[in-house]
Amino acid sequence: MDNYVRIFDTTLRDGEQSPGASLDAAEKLEIARQLARLGVDIIEAGFPAASPGDAEAVRRIATEVGNSREGARVPIIAGLARANATDIDTCWEAIRPAVHPRIHTFLATSDIHLEHKLKMTREQVVARVGEMVARAKQCCDDVEFSPEDAGRSDPEFLYRVLEVAINAGATTLNIPDTVGYTTPEEFGALIAGVIKNTPGIERVVVSAHCHDDLGLATANTLAGIRAGARQVEVTVNGIGERAGNTSLEEVVMTLRTRQSFYGLTTGIDTTQIARTSRLVSNYTSIPVQPNKAIVGANAFAHEAGIHQDGMLKHHLTYEIMRPETVGVAQSNLVLGKHSGRHALQVRLTELGYQMSDADLQQAFQRFKELADKKKVVTDADLAALIADEFYQPPEVFALEDIQVTCGRHGMPTATVRLRGPDERTTVRAAVGTGPVDAAYKAIDAIVNAPNTLVEYSVHAVTEGIDALGEVTVRLQSHEPEPRTLGGHGADTDIIVASAKAYLAALNKLVAVEEHAPRLHAQHSEMSASNS
Amino acid sequence: MDNYVRIFDTTLRDGEQSPGASLDAAEKLEIARQLARLGVDIIEAGFPAASPGDAEAVRRIATEVGNSREGARVPIIAGLARANATDIDTCWEAIRPAVHPRIHTFLATSDIHLEHKLKMTREQVVARVGEMVARAKQCCDDVEFSPEDAGRSDPEFLYRVLEVAINAGATTLNIPDTVGYTTPEEFGALIAGVIKNTPGIERVVVSAHCHDDLGLATANTLAGIRAGARQVEVTVNGIGERAGNTSLEEVVMTLRTRQSFYGLTTGIDTTQIARTSRLVSNYTSIPVQPNKAIVGANAFAHEAGIHQDGMLKHHLTYEIMRPETVGVAQSNLVLGKHSGRHALQVRLTELGYQMSDADLQQAFQRFKELADKKKVVTDADLAALIADEFYQPPEVFALEDIQVTCGRHGMPTATVRLRGPDERTTVRAAVGTGPVDAAYKAIDAIVNAPNTLVEYSVHAVTEGIDALGEVTVRLQSHEPEPRTLGGHGADTDIIVASAKAYLAALNKLVAVEEHAPRLHAQHSEMSASNS
Repeated sequence: MDNYVRIFDTTLRDGEQSPGASLDAAEKLEIARQLARLGVDIIEAGFPAASPGDAEAVRRIATEVGNSREGARVPIIAGLARANATDIDTCWEAIRPAVHPRIHTFLATSDIHLEHKLKMTREQVVARVGEMVARAKQCCDDVEFSPEDAGRSDPEFLYRVLEVAINAGATTLNIPDTVGYTTPEEFGALIAGVIKNTPGIERVVVSAHCHDDLGLATANTLAGIRAGARQVEVTVNGIGERAGNTSLEEVVMTLRTRQSFYGLTTGIDTTQIARTSRLVSNYTSIPVQPNKAIVGANAFAHEAGIHQDGMLKHHLTYEIMRPETVGVAQSNLVLGKHSGRHALQVRLTELGYQMSDADLQQAFQRFKELADKKKVVTDADLAALIADEFYQPPEVFALEDIQVTCGRHGMPTATVRLRGPDERTTVRAAVGTGPVDAAYKAIDAIVNAPNTLVEYSVHAVTEGIDALGEVTVRLQSHEPEPRTLGGHGADTDIIVASAKAYLAALNKLVAVEEHAPRLHAQHSEMSASNS
Repeated sequence: MDNYVRIFDTTLRDGEQSPGASLDAAEKLEIARQLARLGVDIIEAGFPAASPGDAEAVRRIATEVGNSREGARVPIIAGLARANATDIDTCWEAIRPAVHPRIHTFLATSDIHLEHKLKMTREQVVARVGEMVARAKQCCDDVEFSPEDAGRSDPEFLYRVLEVAINAGATTLNIPDTVGYTTPEEFGALIAGVIKNTPGIERVVVSAHCHDDLGLATANTLAGIRAGARQVEVTVNGIGERAGNTSLEEVVMTLRTRQSFYGLTTGIDTTQIARTSRLVSNYTSIPVQPNKAIVGANAFAHEAGIHQDGMLKHHLTYEIMRPETVGVAQSNLVLGKHSGRHALQVRLTELGYQMSDADLQQAFQRFKELADKKKVVTDADLAALIADEFYQPPEVFALEDIQVTCGRHGMPTATVRLRGPDERTTVRAAVGTGPVDAAYKAIDAIVNAPNTLVEYSVHAVTEGIDALGEVTVRLQSHEPEPRTLGGHGADTDIIVASAKAYLAALNKLVAVEEHAPRLHAQHSEMSASNS
């Protein structure tokens, strides 16, 4: 068994199934680029059969990220497919532009799933797995198979299905703990059992896929690795349905920090972790709590006063890793109002943004506006500014102007001017319970897309009261089916940022309504029906 | 070995050391009451020798919570003390009003700490532990001892120190993984080694205290339990320095959900978990990420579309616990503008608030104001309203009025009227980069307490655009030493809420400046020097 652990990132597939995290194609592409810089081995880019939009996003990632060496290597681009011909063919069409494409197909193996969901006998499952893995193999050499609900399957039957998958050409076998129920001891034993009892297992890579419902995803994944798994399926910041998936940064940094214990390596450039975390948090609108391991704001912070009793000289005895190792800069003050276009371009390039001259000009204008208001413009400000300017959904409605009056005893009033799809501008005023409510009511009066705001939050991007405020909203549409959509906006004026974020989400909603309803890859690998 | 795991909650001691989480005495008391309702066995209320304020807060908790049966039992009230006479005596004075007081004392046992920090020989450490545990034992029967940096100590020396502590009267021995460095295998082996090799260990309870720097705190704590620990030191939401402590809810719900695996019980009323989590998050200003296990907003949420393929009838096969088990209400719409005072009183009592008639009247007025603006007032709204109205620091400066104008192309301007300590009102206007910046500048012009805003965030308390917005800020004072202070404010107008939150933090800062600088119990048990 080798000592290299493959990092299979499923932020764009399983992670995107977090409520409200839905990403558009441009956001997915930018995240995929950053994952390549981070050095993940495999990017699971989506579930092409879920919708034409998903297929297109996977195809763009396969074409652009699957053909360029942003990190140490060209990553494998994987797509998910149920074990049926249509899904597999659709998946293949989406991923084939990549240098290294992978089809990831799955079918349940537990009796409860066979009986209630699949309405299939064990013999039918065995036949289907053999047939569909072989079909995928005809498309590409690299085929991954996941036995859904492996943990509740009859072990002997599980081993038999896995053997069939190997013989049909599978090169990776992924063992999911679909509902996040197992303890580390149990999950380790599950992986050990598969490795011990499946004929031909030495020819394939075994993979661990865990969920964090009990807070044990990282420990379960590590137990799987100890038992012999050499691929782990993870997401940035541990996002995903319910309590999320195993977090990439925790597994990677444990293997690195405790190299003496595990004796294993990964291909991750850990200095890209902090930046990747911020990017995913911004685009998915899912915040990271301050006390999150590795990537939380406090992960490397100590309460004031720590240095008082002279222990500073022994700080290494209290720190098990250095902030720089995960890319948390000690000081990231970089630009101010006197910085020129060249300085901005150099910094953006260092941060990994590739821009056309026109885009750079546009970014420079926004930068100068911001620098006029703020004394220093940090890397975090730049990332928020770029996200706000370039990674927004198509503007069906654009914010031309907003004006707000509010206060303790006043009647909060907002006046909004939007430019609509027909290029006509409309102005509406509304009174609300507060300035944001008033602004949203004024926007609603123009856009007319019924929805419920399910989350609203604001974070200051950097320190100081003149900071850029970043607003994220999630709203739920009512028709034709409930869908959760996120939007973000950044401005030094949080009312303006709030209006931008709401409009971004509404623009997604309006755009979605023009397309067919979209099938979601629900519940990780497990819930899409297989008919 | 019994099958009952004692829950030792250190949210108010180790948890409060999170940057910016500092709580005032009223907030601590309210959290302690809720911890008692939750059914924790031991509340570590603070570190009395750290400051007179900390001692007073511990004393109030010992007096009020340590004498009443809010949950299934009267909890033990513990205080932390370094292994010296002053600390132990100060601790005892603070906790003695409790029915069940406990002194928790600690001393490092690793050679690196002995040499660099304590400047003590091993023999001196042995003598000090025996002497100080005996001194604590003279005060009260219940004495806990922690060998700081146990994981890096020479095992034979560790066992010897623990034996001395037992012989001097310690009833609980707590084994900390101070820097969050161990793997579950290692921490389990550490506990197993202590139990196997320490003479007299069968007479005491062994305790596990872990940190989450690698995301393994829950798994390490469970490994400690499997090895024989029957007390766990945990915090609500897993807050604490750096990546935080082991989270109470994850350990408790794993033991409960996987009772068949662990065969152990706790005394926790799990239906109080969600409410406790919200209370701690609000008062500490530390948000909980949506994908946090058990208490995250998405922990029980599935992306829209889940119900499409007819699997609803088997939902139990995908849910390992029910939301109701941890107190996440399915529907919590309770009150509206037509609800009377009695309905409010009944609901507040159900939520655990005990109020005087005068306070109820005050709360009712705030409720009516809110109900005039919002269609429905939920439990979460009520909790935010009560926190905003009753758990604020003493008002040195009070917000009388605020008026704001802002917008995309405007010059954001705020006018603020404050009533100061001399009852004089002052009005100032200021222009800022946004409405919040303008308001804060106007406030600064009146209060004149130099600080840096290090965090600013807003969350909508409930769904809908007319929701109550809750603003939390953390700021850092400059003199006499850097201190982080938090404040929160709630209002349907987020600019008003922002002004309230900032004033709350400033009021703490102004109040603090009138007192002596405060000694912090830095770095868990490990960093306070022992001279």
